[in-house]
Amino acid sequence: MPNFRLELCYDGTRFDGWQRQGNTPNTIQGLLERTLSEILEQEIEVAGSGRTDAGVHARRQVASFRAKTKLPPETILANLRKKLPSDVGALSLIEAQPRFHARLNCTSKTYVYRIWNSEAPNVFERKYLLPVPEPLDLEAMQRAADLLCGTHDFTSFHANKRFKRSAVRTITKIEIENRGEEVDLRFTGDGFLYHMVRILTGTLLEVGLGQRAANSMPEILSAMDRARAGKTAPARGLILWDVGYDHGKSKSTPDKCDLLTDGNPKPC
Amino acid sequence: MPNFRLELCYDGTRFDGWQRQGNTPNTIQGLLERTLSEILEQEIEVAGSGRTDAGVHARRQVASFRAKTKLPPETILANLRKKLPSDVGALSLIEAQPRFHARLNCTSKTYVYRIWNSEAPNVFERKYLLPVPEPLDLEAMQRAADLLCGTHDFTSFHANKRFKRSAVRTITKIEIENRGEEVDLRFTGDGFLYHMVRILTGTLLEVGLGQRAANSMPEILSAMDRARAGKTAPARGLILWDVGYDHGKSKSTPDKCDLLTDGNPKPC
Repeated sequence: MPNFRLELCYDGTRFDGWQRQGNTPNTIQGLLERTLSEILEQEIEVAGSGRTDAGVHARRQVASFRAKTKLPPETILANLRKKLPSDVGALSLIEAQPRFHARLNCTSKTYVYRIWNSEAPNVFERKYLLPVPEPLDLEAMQRAADLLCGTHDFTSFHANKRFKRSAVRTITKIEIENRGEEVDLRFTGDGFLYHMVRILTGTLLEVGLGQRAANSMPEILSAMDRARAGKTAPARGLILWDVGYDHGKSKSTPDKCDLLTDGNPKPC
Repeated sequence: MPNFRLELCYDGTRFDGWQRQGNTPNTIQGLLERTLSEILEQEIEVAGSGRTDAGVHARRQVASFRAKTKLPPETILANLRKKLPSDVGALSLIEAQPRFHARLNCTSKTYVYRIWNSEAPNVFERKYLLPVPEPLDLEAMQRAADLLCGTHDFTSFHANKRFKRSAVRTITKIEIENRGEEVDLRFTGDGFLYHMVRILTGTLLEVGLGQRAANSMPEILSAMDRARAGKTAPARGLILWDVGYDHGKSKSTPDKCDLLTDGNPKPC
């Protein structure tokens, strides 16, 4: 059965996030599955590189799905583009290696949190920016950010209380980018926990506003207590920027039980 | 009575254009007048550099108004920013020369028409772009554009049938900008007639698509017949980019009767 790799982007404003769930019909995954099932005349299950929360956008998300079809990818792509609403875009569709799985093979993710750091409004990109008009100490934010990089237990920086598995993740890089009136926080790592980028952003913003010391990051990490970190920044400023796949490698942390077997995860 | 100069931007998507009119409550001018009247506790009349059509955006529009007030401009600006909806932004507000009038003193305008020239969708800027996925011959478009520059009677390129005054305007420059998947048409001139930029864009697009010869522009101009030019491009891709004021000069064409007299236009 052919295996496909789909790249897509979306404006998450009106969606209840990526993941299809019982009572929330308005999800990206659900929309893609309904649309592809219609085009391919069979039930399609789509795997994304990871979930995005309600209101979070994606500049480049990767998904995979299998379908019994002779339609060439170009035809499926053209049909998808015709049927998807204007806030979800199909960027590309190719036939993938038989074992490719968008979540299990994903080795890195980059998220960008966009802050509008000006008193003057930005009307055109208002749905994709968090306005923070107060002056920000970007150097202090970068110092704090550097202390969060590396491999740590990020229990203090995620919001899933029922999460039983390891909260150890590796953040490769956090860049605080001064783009004039806009300040972007660019996070790259092997994976991020529920609300993790938004809590990291909220905490770094408190550093930038002088409400928290840059060098307090190691203490927050070692406390392993969500209450010690900053507020969760709103979803609207967050964009899944890019998703990386190292050929042949599968995700090494933390779901070691998710080993790839013919593209299907083994149960833990 | 102090005279003020306001710079603003707006996402025109949900508005019925700039100009306040009897039966259309949803105009930018009307919104500004209601908001300023509330802040300044008196009836305020706002003059814009010019009208924009329903659905047209402004990156920088200039308006002027007079008010009997002792409030400093910063206070009025802060109040405006609090009260205006998120799709209308007050960029700056200063006290202007007593004789300054946003429309009568305006000496140049720049409009940008943004085209998304790709089969892949652009979800984030979809409200500000016209999608034209077909290949465009940008060199032919630039040759045609150059033939439209200069001082001409633009009767063939405007949509106001009841327009009795001169249709002579000067286009200083039309630049066809290749920005990868985006193509921008940048028009600068002393003023533009009703639908003029959108008809110029529609005509240039037909040249780019090979449906019309680049060197046919002089014929269209000399025909003085709207039917000879191309289609009117949709409002959504059009942005009033900037407005120019030459200190001391007032608009010289075509409303010669609009001479400045204490900031008020003389009736024609």
